[in-house]
Amino acid sequence: MDAARWTAAEARRAIRTGEWTGPTAGLASAHGQANLVALPREHAYDFLLFCQRNPRPCPLLEVVDAGRLEPECAAGGDLRIDLPRYRVFRGGALAEEVDDAAPLWRDDLVSFLIGCSFSFEAPLLAAGLEVRHLTERRNVPMYRTARPTRLAGPFQGPLVVSMRPFRPTDVPRVVEITERLPRVHGAPVHVGDPEAIGIADLSRPDYGDAVTVREGEVPVFWACGVTPQAALLAARLPFAITHAPGHMLVTDLPCSGPFPGDQA
Amino acid sequence: MDAARWTAAEARRAIRTGEWTGPTAGLASAHGQANLVALPREHAYDFLLFCQRNPRPCPLLEVVDAGRLEPECAAGGDLRIDLPRYRVFRGGALAEEVDDAAPLWRDDLVSFLIGCSFSFEAPLLAAGLEVRHLTERRNVPMYRTARPTRLAGPFQGPLVVSMRPFRPTDVPRVVEITERLPRVHGAPVHVGDPEAIGIADLSRPDYGDAVTVREGEVPVFWACGVTPQAALLAARLPFAITHAPGHMLVTDLPCSGPFPGDQA
Repeated sequence: MDAARWTAAEARRAIRTGEWTGPTAGLASAHGQANLVALPREHAYDFLLFCQRNPRPCPLLEVVDAGRLEPECAAGGDLRIDLPRYRVFRGGALAEEVDDAAPLWRDDLVSFLIGCSFSFEAPLLAAGLEVRHLTERRNVPMYRTARPTRLAGPFQGPLVVSMRPFRPTDVPRVVEITERLPRVHGAPVHVGDPEAIGIADLSRPDYGDAVTVREGEVPVFWACGVTPQAALLAARLPFAITHAPGHMLVTDLPCSGPFPGDQA
Repeated sequence: MDAARWTAAEARRAIRTGEWTGPTAGLASAHGQANLVALPREHAYDFLLFCQRNPRPCPLLEVVDAGRLEPECAAGGDLRIDLPRYRVFRGGALAEEVDDAAPLWRDDLVSFLIGCSFSFEAPLLAAGLEVRHLTERRNVPMYRTARPTRLAGPFQGPLVVSMRPFRPTDVPRVVEITERLPRVHGAPVHVGDPEAIGIADLSRPDYGDAVTVREGEVPVFWACGVTPQAALLAARLPFAITHAPGHMLVTDLPCSGPFPGDQA
């Protein structure tokens, strides 16, 4: 099988049936992917405001009303079972990971779908660039930084970033390609010098897997849709469900956009 | 006085003191302007979602929490008295217009500041283009269209547009200049043929003043931040305060951006 060439519907079906259980980078790569945050309606205003105030890590593609399971961006989809892995937060702490959220789902959950940087990896590959975690068949490395987010209600916390290493000569092209896709995090927020943003050790990511950074390469960092998971800890909500980092919703949206909210 | 050259703070002061009472097009023209929608906290989620689902007419610059009066984008400002004219909605209908909203303000009002297309008029002028309502010293003409918005809770209604006439040869330049400023409505949504978007008579705008459309000119339409006022009627909220169309908040933001939410 060449999972990169699957349609979005094929990818979601493979995930539902358990044929695909891992991170979704490179899966159905013509299509955009999304982070999930599902939380009770009573906290939805504060979280929506958190996204409005932090558009770089939280570019909203869609808000699925409570009681609905099928996003507009994933026809025939079911948010409870279409992601390979979920995180369940209870009492303000990460309680467990599950591969089927249906037994835990509640009618009062509002689902926020946030653009994912996996979406711009196909355009990077198409430009002849290497995406290291795809080469090494690992999850993308993600790090909590020392940069704060702007608070909204109880939601606050550090900016989380994903990292991909590139040769310095390729960095301008990487910026050009990704800045055109602001709804999936757009241009990098930082290039080089991890310590400057509070990352002590690239080999010990807070989420996902470490990847090889070769001699002469620089780490390039993008705002990441796992940022809300750090904010969920601060907010101490009684209950929430998110995707497990790197285990995204594969949407029907084309990977190069336009995405909902784009000007075009 | 040359009100176009005022600083934003000077403009807000002139409005507070009653020195300036009219529409704000052309005022402190180096600065961006904003639409205001202030409504009770209990309706804030649905309205924020309406903005998220309708980013073209409702590009949010800032949400000011209930109990606060000074926006981050207008230092020293006071939302109750810094706009020249307000509309008050009660029981789902337009109840009155006032020039001082302080006596009516409530501690539970959340204030939404939405980018205004007056912000890109200085860049248009700087490119040698004429902005007709500035030439004729009128308010910009605004129209309810036949295009629906995407609903959120009780909020729905027609897209409202502003109109500026240009020569056909200037239209591409007008698009180029405005598309760079998506946070103040960006590129036009329609060029020419008013009937195609449900506008029967350009000489009878639904808000603001009619302006001269000269022989050979085409009307160019932009999504407008008055769209929420049409949605407020549909939502039948017990209470809300907005700016009066054309009577905006003059912000400290530079008219050519960057604006909050811009990628850069």
